[in-house]
Amino acid sequence: MTRPRDNILRLDAYAPGEQPAAGTRVVKLNTNESPYPPSPKAMDAIASVGTEALRIYPSPTAQPFREAAARVHGLSADQLIATNGGDELLRLILTCYCKPAGHAGQGGIGVTDPTYSLYPVLASIHDTAVTAVERGDGFSLPGGTAKRWNEAGCAVGFIVNPHAPTGRIETPDTLRQLADEFRGLLVIDEAYVDFAEGDAAELIREGRDNVLLLRSLSKGYGLAGLRFGYGLSHADNIAALDKARDSYNTDAVSQAAAVAALDDRAYAEGCWAKVIAERGRMTSELRQRSFEVPDSHTNFVLATAPGTGAPDNTAAKHAHAIYHGLKERGILVRYFNAPRLDDKLRITIGTPEQNTALLDALDELL
Amino acid sequence: MTRPRDNILRLDAYAPGEQPAAGTRVVKLNTNESPYPPSPKAMDAIASVGTEALRIYPSPTAQPFREAAARVHGLSADQLIATNGGDELLRLILTCYCKPAGHAGQGGIGVTDPTYSLYPVLASIHDTAVTAVERGDGFSLPGGTAKRWNEAGCAVGFIVNPHAPTGRIETPDTLRQLADEFRGLLVIDEAYVDFAEGDAAELIREGRDNVLLLRSLSKGYGLAGLRFGYGLSHADNIAALDKARDSYNTDAVSQAAAVAALDDRAYAEGCWAKVIAERGRMTSELRQRSFEVPDSHTNFVLATAPGTGAPDNTAAKHAHAIYHGLKERGILVRYFNAPRLDDKLRITIGTPEQNTALLDALDELL
Repeated sequence: MTRPRDNILRLDAYAPGEQPAAGTRVVKLNTNESPYPPSPKAMDAIASVGTEALRIYPSPTAQPFREAAARVHGLSADQLIATNGGDELLRLILTCYCKPAGHAGQGGIGVTDPTYSLYPVLASIHDTAVTAVERGDGFSLPGGTAKRWNEAGCAVGFIVNPHAPTGRIETPDTLRQLADEFRGLLVIDEAYVDFAEGDAAELIREGRDNVLLLRSLSKGYGLAGLRFGYGLSHADNIAALDKARDSYNTDAVSQAAAVAALDDRAYAEGCWAKVIAERGRMTSELRQRSFEVPDSHTNFVLATAPGTGAPDNTAAKHAHAIYHGLKERGILVRYFNAPRLDDKLRITIGTPEQNTALLDALDELL
Repeated sequence: MTRPRDNILRLDAYAPGEQPAAGTRVVKLNTNESPYPPSPKAMDAIASVGTEALRIYPSPTAQPFREAAARVHGLSADQLIATNGGDELLRLILTCYCKPAGHAGQGGIGVTDPTYSLYPVLASIHDTAVTAVERGDGFSLPGGTAKRWNEAGCAVGFIVNPHAPTGRIETPDTLRQLADEFRGLLVIDEAYVDFAEGDAAELIREGRDNVLLLRSLSKGYGLAGLRFGYGLSHADNIAALDKARDSYNTDAVSQAAAVAALDDRAYAEGCWAKVIAERGRMTSELRQRSFEVPDSHTNFVLATAPGTGAPDNTAAKHAHAIYHGLKERGILVRYFNAPRLDDKLRITIGTPEQNTALLDALDELL
């Protein structure tokens, strides 16, 4: 009787990217963190949190943050929810909108494959169905996605845009059409949008009630360690999520740091510009080394190893060998042992020095 | 199709205790926070978190904290899980052990009534059944509790011990018997145990696989604003909960502060001793003012207003009037508009000065 539920026992839990032990000297280009520290103003905000703010319960809704983010996005505070990382928001969406198994197979989630590997894990935890639509050539969004999700009765559809792990981007018009056609809640996961031109916030400002955007301070604001994300949607959706979140889901320190980070947009924009410049350099340098590298709109590139299309899938073996060779040289990148990805490396854009170290190591290896 | 699930729409969300706006001068004795600030070492730990720890993802399991807590409780790290406040742990327990509706009515939660008002809210969010066993005379634990929970097929039973909102305590032997009789997972919510003599950790050290203890840094460590709790149980239960938590559920700052707070046990014990001494004084002073005040093992007392037993329920009206009278005088206490509680006030033990202010205000009012 004290056994956990079968869906939990069966669950293959989410595997976070490799994190080297503290003090290890590595060039860490495997988990898409910002190569730059958070804003000094965020650090000041953390150091300034007083004992009284820690002694008492924090704002349950992170109200000061909601108001700051509302100003940034031209929305009202009741169209925003602050969460303990974007991951909490994803989970809350399933809790509020998806039906656990036993409800006639309807009400699950739709994804496009490949995608953020956490989505199917969250679906397993919630014991709800996953409908995966395979991405097209060049990992493009297939035309019939909404139709497929509708046929499967998906309550929620997840699109990462810009897309992970490929770095592609869809236009707001494409997303608008998807929202028009899909009968569930369309979640646009904009974890990487700070490195792209423009976002999809206009879909929320238009007053649509079936779109939700996810934002994160982990990548664009150098605050992966802080766990702070937020959602933008119609106030009715936010009200539902707000009822289901843990009573005090974000703490006093992270609320203060998040407000300061968001307010210091000039600093963040400076970091994004440096990453974007280096992304251009890395794309070009990797192409010169015979990698196939599509244009990226994120803080990483997905690089196909030389040898693609060879009948013995040379690139797959090559990508894995390069991953290991880099690791031996103290450089971590991400290798996915998965169909369509096993001939590729996902490389986070680092500082110019880190990126050069990677290129130098490749020159040794290739 | 984008409507949230019916159980969420119907949900009457958890209502946190009243928190006055920042800068308001009130004597706040309504939400059981510690009257003392966190350890200076915890504050130092927060100020010392560097940009690098914030830039990268934190330890997914809060491993340094688990190891520190394992030493404190004489357990191993795999018998511990760190959570974003105790509330996250409670939610995870439902996620992992309780069956959502549609599973033949079995697999819900058992509680004793009255209890922490969050439990039924979490059950509604998870869409699972609640079996409430009414507490006996003096809010004692009824003898047939396990039998009633077993008959209802409860997967989890929740006991707050020391009990909120009454301050009562059950002995480890009583809890051991409950664990022996109950066929589900017995969760002993020890949020207030720092103010009692002894705890139930021996039930975990004995190797039982159907008991889980909840601990919090909110009350005993003056860190309600930080959101940090943890669970102690058999490693198999911890492994299940660990699979279902958000990928990085506690952040780098709170992990550092929690380790420092736990390590500075001497400071915390000094705070507990001061609260316990004041609890004795307040119990005695309130009794002298004709309140009925059972001995408390927590950092609050539950005081029945004078006039109990009068046919017109004078005490109930009186308790509510006193609550308002205190509020007008800038003193917040907790009033529950609920059966068996509406003639009582739950009063958090404050600093000696705060407690004296409360007594003086009562002398004006009564």
